[in-house]
Amino acid sequence: MPGYSDTKDDVQKRLRRIEGQVRGLQRMVEEDVYCIDVLTQVSATTRALQSMAVELLDAHLRHCVADATRSDDAAEAERLVTEASRAIERLVRS
Amino acid sequence: MPGYSDTKDDVQKRLRRIEGQVRGLQRMVEEDVYCIDVLTQVSATTRALQSMAVELLDAHLRHCVADATRSDDAAEAERLVTEASRAIERLVRS
Amino acid sequence: MPGYSDTKDDVQKRLRRIEGQVRGLQRMVEEDVYCIDVLTQVSATTRALQSMAVELLDAHLRHCVADATRSDDAAEAERLVTEASRAIERLVRS
Amino acid sequence: MPGYSDTKDDVQKRLRRIEGQVRGLQRMVEEDVYCIDVLTQVSATTRALQSMAVELLDAHLRHCVADATRSDDAAEAERLVTEASRAIERLVRS
Repeated sequence: MPGYSDTKDDVQKRLRRIEGQVRGLQRMVEEDVYCIDVLTQVSATTRALQSMAVELLDAHLRHCVADATRSDDAAEAERLVTEASRAIERLVRS
Repeated sequence: MPGYSDTKDDVQKRLRRIEGQVRGLQRMVEEDVYCIDVLTQVSATTRALQSMAVELLDAHLRHCVADATRSDDAAEAERLVTEASRAIERLVRS
Repeated sequence: MPGYSDTKDDVQKRLRRIEGQVRGLQRMVEEDVYCIDVLTQVSATTRALQSMAVELLDAHLRHCVADATRSDDAAEAERLVTEASRAIERLVRS
Repeated sequence: MPGYSDTKDDVQKRLRRIEGQVRGLQRMVEEDVYCIDVLTQVSATTRALQSMAVELLDAHLRHCVADATRSDDAAEAERLVTEASRAIERLVRS
């Protein structure tokens, strides 16, 4: 099971809301809404995506740390941290 | 007409692709895909949104500068720049 | 003269404050301050830099639009917008 | 000892380089360098700060996971993840 298995419903609810925001953007562009107002909505959608990413990452780290507490596999723990750091780097850069 | 009126088709195509990416995220979560792979796709979606925002802003600035070249309304030009700078700030922060 | 010539003193004051924040970070690391507290200060420094960048960009756009209002050089105005959009893209990505 | 104790020299070297970049920005502004060129250097400095933040976070997570592997303190591990997630959120937002 992935780290987000306990919060899967919440993640899906957030994703459906984000899908709604993207469809809202399509309607705005269709109706020739003023650029700056479209951009405000784009920023809100980006923030919603980033906030969901932080929630997913939190669930993942919690899972990794719980696994590390149970097992004694230090090498596997190292591998997981390296992988998580790369994901954080991609998020910070995007 | 908004600044993006000439590139409206391209903007809509990008938004439909972003909607597809968000639906793809829902499928990934539904199928319990590994957290880190979901996060990679979230970063790609955020980048697509930010890149579309820069395109919209470019079209908007082009429009404002063309208007400023035609008219002599310095006060209106000032107002437009202040408005654009606030939109840029929201993008940089999101 | 660059676009920021009117606000040069303010820009320099901000840069000296940012230099102070970076030296503060060096002291924190020297004194083995807890990671999370160092990271909070890194985030504050990044925000100060981004905020100064938005101020510089605002001054630059104001300058470009004022020039466009005075002259009738549409081709030069186009070139300046393209250049500004690329700078905005770099800021949004960083 | 903080999580970065093993890489303290590298962190300090990065911070001195970032301080040099901020002083370079002051010189550029002093010499009235073109806005867009100043902004390119601001973006490079921001990226250097963000990259150092990811390195610090990586060291911190490695430390936390190693501690969790050694001890059996699940409550403390939970607290550390919550704290790290908030730091990640601040970085992503800045």
